[in-house]
Amino acid sequence: MITTRVYIGTSLDGFIARKDGSFDWLSKFADGDAVGAYENFMAGIDVIVIGRHTFETVLDFPAWPYERPVVVLSHTIREVPQRLLENVSLVRLEPKDLLSELFEKGFRSAYIDGGNVIQSFLADDLVDELIIARVPVVLGDGIPLFGYLSHDLEFKHRRTATFSSGLIRSYYTRPRD
Amino acid sequence: MITTRVYIGTSLDGFIARKDGSFDWLSKFADGDAVGAYENFMAGIDVIVIGRHTFETVLDFPAWPYERPVVVLSHTIREVPQRLLENVSLVRLEPKDLLSELFEKGFRSAYIDGGNVIQSFLADDLVDELIIARVPVVLGDGIPLFGYLSHDLEFKHRRTATFSSGLIRSYYTRPRD
Repeated sequence: MITTRVYIGTSLDGFIARKDGSFDWLSKFADGDAVGAYENFMAGIDVIVIGRHTFETVLDFPAWPYERPVVVLSHTIREVPQRLLENVSLVRLEPKDLLSELFEKGFRSAYIDGGNVIQSFLADDLVDELIIARVPVVLGDGIPLFGYLSHDLEFKHRRTATFSSGLIRSYYTRPRD
Repeated sequence: MITTRVYIGTSLDGFIARKDGSFDWLSKFADGDAVGAYENFMAGIDVIVIGRHTFETVLDFPAWPYERPVVVLSHTIREVPQRLLENVSLVRLEPKDLLSELFEKGFRSAYIDGGNVIQSFLADDLVDELIIARVPVVLGDGIPLFGYLSHDLEFKHRRTATFSSGLIRSYYTRPRD
């Protein structure tokens, strides 16, 4: 099967961005340790799944940030900019069907990113690894990492790394029988 | 001044109880390590501040669980059961005024407990120490630890302890100039 991985930073109160999408409060923790851990994580990824919001956010970056194929899960985006046609594909599948398709194409490790996409994968119990970096700020408002679930999801804690910046990164896996 | 401390357990998605107030998912992590850490924390506490919900919850316990004086912050509770008159006082003050009163009475270290009370102290930036134990369960719904804040609150990470149960406890302090 294909392994799905979430790798994300949150505030102490579980937000991944402010209401306006900004993450100034988070990016100031992007020191050498954080960049190294991200590169280490990305080395084990062969495809990236994001939603419309993340796609629109990274389109505004000075350069396209991903070195792996990117799948955009969206029902509203109609086309991908010409310059990104080689890197980005647009799909309208449910999470489970997308994973089957990615597996058939030979992918084995998917990075699941963006609030809505992560929530829809969690709702279908399709997240295998959850890697959360918490920074010591309470925002009080913003875009939450987690959403409503109809039932508990138990994870297994694998390890936690603490950094002098105050960031704490915990690695969890979802046990599968 | 009086130091205010929050010591609480949450799910990975930041809930302190299910919607119905139950915390079966949390109490199964109450092993020897957790009990020892709680006793260690309580040894440094001289007064406990709770709200109506927590008060009503602990009233249902087989025995009164606190060995320190308890203050119940409530506008609706009218009286305290006779058997608890020596342990419990009822107040209708704002957090800041309550802390002044407790200080005048000689208290120096307050345990701030219960979702609403913690949120009202955070909203007034009156939490000095935040000790959060996270268990590796995503509940998907429940009573949240944090609420709306009009501005960020930055904390300083002091230390994080991990346990074989999967519980991770992080200690934060709020820097005061």
